[in-house]
Amino acid sequence: MSTYTLDELAQRFGLQSSGDPATAVHGVCGLKPGKPGHLGFLSNPKFRDELASTAASIVIVSPRDAPALKGAGLIAADPYLAYARIAALFDPDRDFEAGVHPSAVVDATATLGTGSFVGATAVVEAGAQIGEGAYIGAGCTVSRDAVIGAGTRLVARVWVGPRVTLGARCQVQAGAVLGSRGFGNARGPQGWEEVPQLGSLVVGDDVEIGANTCIDRGAIDDTVIENGVRLDNLIQIAHNCRIGEHTAIAACTGIAGSTRIGRRCMIGGAVGINGHIEIADDVIVLGRAMVTGSITTRGVYGSGLPLDDAREWRKTVARVRRLGRMEARLQALERHTRIPVGTQEDDKNV
Amino acid sequence: MSTYTLDELAQRFGLQSSGDPATAVHGVCGLKPGKPGHLGFLSNPKFRDELASTAASIVIVSPRDAPALKGAGLIAADPYLAYARIAALFDPDRDFEAGVHPSAVVDATATLGTGSFVGATAVVEAGAQIGEGAYIGAGCTVSRDAVIGAGTRLVARVWVGPRVTLGARCQVQAGAVLGSRGFGNARGPQGWEEVPQLGSLVVGDDVEIGANTCIDRGAIDDTVIENGVRLDNLIQIAHNCRIGEHTAIAACTGIAGSTRIGRRCMIGGAVGINGHIEIADDVIVLGRAMVTGSITTRGVYGSGLPLDDAREWRKTVARVRRLGRMEARLQALERHTRIPVGTQEDDKNV
Amino acid sequence: MSTYTLDELAQRFGLQSSGDPATAVHGVCGLKPGKPGHLGFLSNPKFRDELASTAASIVIVSPRDAPALKGAGLIAADPYLAYARIAALFDPDRDFEAGVHPSAVVDATATLGTGSFVGATAVVEAGAQIGEGAYIGAGCTVSRDAVIGAGTRLVARVWVGPRVTLGARCQVQAGAVLGSRGFGNARGPQGWEEVPQLGSLVVGDDVEIGANTCIDRGAIDDTVIENGVRLDNLIQIAHNCRIGEHTAIAACTGIAGSTRIGRRCMIGGAVGINGHIEIADDVIVLGRAMVTGSITTRGVYGSGLPLDDAREWRKTVARVRRLGRMEARLQALERHTRIPVGTQEDDKNV
Repeated sequence: MSTYTLDELAQRFGLQSSGDPATAVHGVCGLKPGKPGHLGFLSNPKFRDELASTAASIVIVSPRDAPALKGAGLIAADPYLAYARIAALFDPDRDFEAGVHPSAVVDATATLGTGSFVGATAVVEAGAQIGEGAYIGAGCTVSRDAVIGAGTRLVARVWVGPRVTLGARCQVQAGAVLGSRGFGNARGPQGWEEVPQLGSLVVGDDVEIGANTCIDRGAIDDTVIENGVRLDNLIQIAHNCRIGEHTAIAACTGIAGSTRIGRRCMIGGAVGINGHIEIADDVIVLGRAMVTGSITTRGVYGSGLPLDDAREWRKTVARVRRLGRMEARLQALERHTRIPVGTQEDDKNV
Repeated sequence: MSTYTLDELAQRFGLQSSGDPATAVHGVCGLKPGKPGHLGFLSNPKFRDELASTAASIVIVSPRDAPALKGAGLIAADPYLAYARIAALFDPDRDFEAGVHPSAVVDATATLGTGSFVGATAVVEAGAQIGEGAYIGAGCTVSRDAVIGAGTRLVARVWVGPRVTLGARCQVQAGAVLGSRGFGNARGPQGWEEVPQLGSLVVGDDVEIGANTCIDRGAIDDTVIENGVRLDNLIQIAHNCRIGEHTAIAACTGIAGSTRIGRRCMIGGAVGINGHIEIADDVIVLGRAMVTGSITTRGVYGSGLPLDDAREWRKTVARVRRLGRMEARLQALERHTRIPVGTQEDDKNV
Repeated sequence: MSTYTLDELAQRFGLQSSGDPATAVHGVCGLKPGKPGHLGFLSNPKFRDELASTAASIVIVSPRDAPALKGAGLIAADPYLAYARIAALFDPDRDFEAGVHPSAVVDATATLGTGSFVGATAVVEAGAQIGEGAYIGAGCTVSRDAVIGAGTRLVARVWVGPRVTLGARCQVQAGAVLGSRGFGNARGPQGWEEVPQLGSLVVGDDVEIGANTCIDRGAIDDTVIENGVRLDNLIQIAHNCRIGEHTAIAACTGIAGSTRIGRRCMIGGAVGINGHIEIADDVIVLGRAMVTGSITTRGVYGSGLPLDDAREWRKTVARVRRLGRMEARLQALERHTRIPVGTQEDDKNV
């Protein structure tokens, strides 16, 4: 268990401090109730009251909140970001000893970078390249001719398909499947026939991929995940997609084939995105939306219907189904009263 | 193959019986058509007619249906529950011989309870504790300092992260990922930065977790799954959630971070639940609903739109988009006819 | 790297050719821009212009498009299907050397067909039968008494449960879970009790199952996936379902228990299908639809609401909630103007 003083943290992270420089912490905590010997942060001003009562020994605050500190504090322009960096000091799962576990199966033609690790029962196939300081956790498979960049971490039981390449400093959670066969099928006289998927998957640097997320390899060209992308758990990305730099996608979202998503987008959870469309840079899609066509301008988009009492909801569904009838009744009234009416919509043109 | 007589079953499970006490069964069947030498049950009165024609040798019925028995029967207040308990006798996958498979990798500092089993290619890391009679199936990983309770069964290829604890008599299906890194990211000047996830995951007793379901560990405090929870396959539970006792959640549902779900709730399949909300005890959410805010009172809730013919559905979608126009037309009519009108809604206030 | 001439391809696949018979290709490419030494195809007439400019050395075209060929071509009634078959020649991952990897764990009572392969760290349990030429990839588990048909390929880390049977020439992607415990629970006095799932899973011939897809075994009888079915990634199929021949299901779809889907259906991505219903043959369900009841006639069905600008969408949601009020206003107008009105809907009857 590592311990750091206020002074040490201020110097290491280039932050101003306030309070006793010898105040020491050996872990992190929330502000409410907080824990002595631990470090917390205040990012959302809504929780400013907690500063007065927290038991945390050090709190990271913005310059605006600094006057409200009761004890020791670190002052950061972005307290959450400062917390993210400082908290890494207390992460017990980051360090590992380089080497290959005796139960791992590493092909003689694979290359292992300096300081890399291959865990218990992991498999590294012929021609695969493991970068410097990369971590291949227990039960992972790195298939033939795949490339794992320097400092990349496959937590456990990740499958990396043939010829897939991952950049540097990526992190892939347990159970992810990278470079699986895309869902390409052609109708033949006897039923579906397999369309060989001969492209691969290229993942950039600093990408995170969540647990049990699946990314298919391309049919002809490659599926591409650009630098800095963040993918949560249980996401499906189909063949030939391209996800732009620094885009973040929440859990349970599915993206059909050949779709391109721009840079710095934020896609909510359980969103469904159609194939063969394009989404511009800086688009935000709210959770559970259905994206059927291209989005050409940045902005916030949604389509989910929020919850209601089930009885009330059933009535609403029935009313939605009666909308055509309601429009006809409206039209009859307008005719009857002869009020001036704009263009009548025509369902045939929908 | 075990065989049991009507008399043996009645005594072992404390049930009344009807018919020849020597009637023997060696397996289970549905009532229609049923199979000789097998045991079935009648729970839903809708299927009472099947009692007359079934080939099942023994049928479990409620006292009300007992008079309609044609052959041997067991009488139980809750026939389905009685079936559940009796059927376990015929489950060929329950028993195992204790021991560690030679291909398993068990760290010298891990502790294995009496009667526990570690299967082929499973990995048990340093400091992990496996309870009495626990079953760690083929290809599972129990990471550093994780704790598996007595009688708990990890079917196969389950990943249990560092310091995760599971209570007694849990059952976890293949591919589940327990205690993965939560999706915590902070925006830095160069893009997303990782927020270390330093909490863990605490799972109570008698919990079932389905295949390829993912539960993230907490960011600071722990994610908690209370006693008796039932989780189906392909569910996502994000960091810092708490799922209350005996709540059951169907497949493909996703729950965002820091949400608390009450006790004895029933959440349908493919439901999406927002982060940072609370759901009361005894709430039922129908399949495919979207839950965006807290639910403070027990009841049944939904928001899914059921299927329609696609042409008709497209018209409905267009009409939904025209609702603002319909309201304006209504208002024009009301003004024109000068009928007394209540408050006009104002879209700006939505 | 294999190379084929136009003439060789024409003969091997029984196609007409056009252009220099010695034209050689060693891979595939898209038409735009295309690559010399590679083969492309033109299926969608929308892209006919690309024929003039492509750098592909050979293009597969329909008879109608043949006159527009600038270089060498193969003429096929269905260019995409012809491409699918020819492209298999260039797939580097198809061939394998038969044998059992030294790190695999194969029970002495399992049987391995001629020409079959068991990869690194794979587990084949007692009584399992591996068919001729079957491929059991790295980290797969074939449980007790399971049967894998001839020529079937389990790519990697697939879990096949006890007594599950797969037919011939199936392909299962990484992480799939076949024959997991169904979500059967009965309410007992202390909480949920497990209902043993004593059926199994029967998969026909020529079935494809995607990455991390889960199919549960039956409660009493078997879950059945018929011949030629195509399942994409991250699909959930609950206990006792039956999926008819040649039906294709896109990613992230969930199907609740005991539902039967007909033959040649096409189910879109992220669809939710209720339990205990029947879907007729040749039904098409559009992506993200919610199927709550049986579908008795072939046709195209949907229920998803497409995306809108979030501000506009929030107004739409509020208007949907006001539909009851709108109907009341309509009715008031109709009464006031005494225009003839059809039957008034009554919310109580919904």
